[in-house]
Amino acid sequence: MPSDKDFVKDITPQSVDFSRWYIDCIRKAELMDYSPVRGCIVFRPDGYELWERIQAGLDRRFKETGHRNAYFPLFIPESFFEKEKEHVEGFNPELPWVTEAGGEKLEERLAIRPTSETMIGYMYAQWIKSYRDLPVLINQWANVVRWEKRTMPFLRTSEFLWQEGHTAHATEEEAREETMRMLEVYREFVETELAIPVYTGEKTPSERFAGAVDTYSVEAMMKDGKALQAGTSHYLGENFARGFDIQFLDKDNQLKYAHTTSWGVSTRLIGALIMVHGDDRGLAFPPKVAPIQVVFIPVGPVKLREKVMARYDALAAQLRAAGIRIKEDTREEYSPGWKYNEYEMRGVPLRIELGPRDVDNNAVVAVRRDTGEKLVLSQDNLAEQVLKLLNDIQSAMFQKAAQFRAEHSHQAATLAELAEIISNKGGFVLAGWCGDAACEKQIKDETKATARNIPFDPPAQMPHCAACGAQAKHTVWYARAY
Amino acid sequence: MPSDKDFVKDITPQSVDFSRWYIDCIRKAELMDYSPVRGCIVFRPDGYELWERIQAGLDRRFKETGHRNAYFPLFIPESFFEKEKEHVEGFNPELPWVTEAGGEKLEERLAIRPTSETMIGYMYAQWIKSYRDLPVLINQWANVVRWEKRTMPFLRTSEFLWQEGHTAHATEEEAREETMRMLEVYREFVETELAIPVYTGEKTPSERFAGAVDTYSVEAMMKDGKALQAGTSHYLGENFARGFDIQFLDKDNQLKYAHTTSWGVSTRLIGALIMVHGDDRGLAFPPKVAPIQVVFIPVGPVKLREKVMARYDALAAQLRAAGIRIKEDTREEYSPGWKYNEYEMRGVPLRIELGPRDVDNNAVVAVRRDTGEKLVLSQDNLAEQVLKLLNDIQSAMFQKAAQFRAEHSHQAATLAELAEIISNKGGFVLAGWCGDAACEKQIKDETKATARNIPFDPPAQMPHCAACGAQAKHTVWYARAY
Repeated sequence: MPSDKDFVKDITPQSVDFSRWYIDCIRKAELMDYSPVRGCIVFRPDGYELWERIQAGLDRRFKETGHRNAYFPLFIPESFFEKEKEHVEGFNPELPWVTEAGGEKLEERLAIRPTSETMIGYMYAQWIKSYRDLPVLINQWANVVRWEKRTMPFLRTSEFLWQEGHTAHATEEEAREETMRMLEVYREFVETELAIPVYTGEKTPSERFAGAVDTYSVEAMMKDGKALQAGTSHYLGENFARGFDIQFLDKDNQLKYAHTTSWGVSTRLIGALIMVHGDDRGLAFPPKVAPIQVVFIPVGPVKLREKVMARYDALAAQLRAAGIRIKEDTREEYSPGWKYNEYEMRGVPLRIELGPRDVDNNAVVAVRRDTGEKLVLSQDNLAEQVLKLLNDIQSAMFQKAAQFRAEHSHQAATLAELAEIISNKGGFVLAGWCGDAACEKQIKDETKATARNIPFDPPAQMPHCAACGAQAKHTVWYARAY
Repeated sequence: MPSDKDFVKDITPQSVDFSRWYIDCIRKAELMDYSPVRGCIVFRPDGYELWERIQAGLDRRFKETGHRNAYFPLFIPESFFEKEKEHVEGFNPELPWVTEAGGEKLEERLAIRPTSETMIGYMYAQWIKSYRDLPVLINQWANVVRWEKRTMPFLRTSEFLWQEGHTAHATEEEAREETMRMLEVYREFVETELAIPVYTGEKTPSERFAGAVDTYSVEAMMKDGKALQAGTSHYLGENFARGFDIQFLDKDNQLKYAHTTSWGVSTRLIGALIMVHGDDRGLAFPPKVAPIQVVFIPVGPVKLREKVMARYDALAAQLRAAGIRIKEDTREEYSPGWKYNEYEMRGVPLRIELGPRDVDNNAVVAVRRDTGEKLVLSQDNLAEQVLKLLNDIQSAMFQKAAQFRAEHSHQAATLAELAEIISNKGGFVLAGWCGDAACEKQIKDETKATARNIPFDPPAQMPHCAACGAQAKHTVWYARAY
């Protein structure tokens, strides 16, 4: 029998090496494995199920906001990239190329899509002829590939899974509304379901999507204080419409270019979940996306197991009937202690134990993953109490992450101050920026912190640029980022 | 205003040219569009939604039978194909190759997956060490690519969407049970939800999956009498386990090779839906997978519209609350007649009309897409009546397809007879087969009909081989196939 203490030592403490802690956790919990193809991972069932839950939550929201799913080809002809200048410069270095197929050399190389603005732009040009055809509100769930030099499971892999929304509108105003609507969908989803607080704002020009007029993002703070871009929404203006000739006859009988948007989140959200909520005991998932919400374990001497099991089965059935995702672990070859460690490591939000004395007392013992708190619950209305507890855990996990973020969000007036905070305390630093790319670059060069985004609400009193000291035009969240 | 008669002339009658009818329907109903990449199509929202419903129905069944989803890389190193001899011969001619990525020539070419037995076999070899690790029951929803010379939308495209189940077991018996279980899942799903009757059976050796020991299929009959393989399930024996070294220590302390299976269905099921149920008025979808189950149209003079709309809204809300997928088309710039044609063409199973007289009579008029039958329903308990009607339509569509199949299923004793039926009547022909590949080939060469599958229940009296006249070992369904 494996020892109860066996495995916590398999996980490097966060304080010793956060990256090693991360890799230890996701491999030990079997969320992923490395594949034999450079930079590509395998999403194992426990990891993929997180993605399925993220998909379900987002897909519902996309449909509620009027979008429908479609599917466009994986391959993009080389010539398509040339049609939007910044786009080709941004993506060209990362593309894998198909040069042979079906036993023949291709006349034109085909890229594996890194994103689908070009292909979708080409198709929209066929479909959009009149103002009556607008808006077009389409989303695609797909795999995309960017040949990355440095990879990290979930956060940055050569192939990854994502959704990309692509919409076309008659006016700039409508397209901008859409851009902000989807940013808000991301914020609400990430905060409500993943229990991850995010800073929303606009990207600086140097951090914009290649080909966008404006890019907006939701930025999350990991437990090592680094930033993770959790989702982006782009107003593309007429850039792709001009490149692909998406023109429509407007009500006023004028031929006009459509205004397009795109927005996406990816499997890196799985990485965010782990890095925001995990601790030295392993993973911790918020109940709303946890594959298993409750693990239910019979305890006490095996010779009294029979007495326990009748009640156990009835309670399990009750929890299941209430729609709670429970795992019954009745294996006798593993000790309760081993199981406690195992499911804590796997991030199950709540554990319920039932032993012979609990049966006598009409009680169960419940243990929260987030706080370690032990509660004695009555068996009467157990499902109702558990649902309430899961809600409490969801809120508490968000509050805890928000508290952590507050403690690691700082302000700096000068580059020296900013550099000091970034290297000693980590976290996010809000500082003034004059709008000059050279200042942004200087900060990046000296601190390795990049501009995450510009908050929407400017401060009453605008500070000076942390780099050059001139009057700032914006405040910017700076942080080292994944 | 478009004329009511405008568009039926846009659809070629089935009797004139079935393939043109098919293309006319799917383009006019906006299920797909051709893409600029050879052999790849775009799944437009109305086409993709059919796939989403197929996915939902199958995914539920896969999970109920103990499977979980995972995701493996798109790229497969060239050397992997060499590890299973028949597999490489079967797929090599169809592969697209990535030879450059990230600005550099790759040391080893990467194929885009045509199917994932090799990649998944490689990973299973890492995960499976002991009998305790078995069975492994994993499914993947993914895009795959086979560079096809002749393509047809949904039925055969270079890139397509599918699911591929891959399982590993300790014994041949268990693996064979799994193979048959998933074949039965396919049969039940295709018949129950898609209302398509199928012949289940075993493939002849020449039609086996490249690398399989045995392949089983469900075969559907299209309205032009041709066959469409709607799903396959393979028992792979130890072939891939030996190629990729999937070995485990069994209870008896012996190192053994695992027995593996794979099984899949693809977006060609969308094509089957269309070719089985459609008619000269366009598409016809069975209610269980129809994106829109009921179109609800207010009728009568526009000046009386106000009187109609209050009742209309209440009834629509009632139908929606009952979980019925309804489309409310209240547009005034299109005539009711135009709308009738439009939604018939798009395959909506039931139309409900509400006019001023219906309001007075506490009635609605319902028109079935499958039969054209017109029914007057009371407004009391409307949702209940509609749910019953949708069930009736589902059964009737299956019965109609089964009737068609019965009328186009024949028997033949000789090759001459078989050839005569195939060229004059079309459909499926059951005939004896001695088991010799040469006889199968002769039939194919002379009739263009291929062996679809060998029914599981042999006849009481085994006939003679239709080709050579020797005592048959099996009966085989022959048909021309997509």
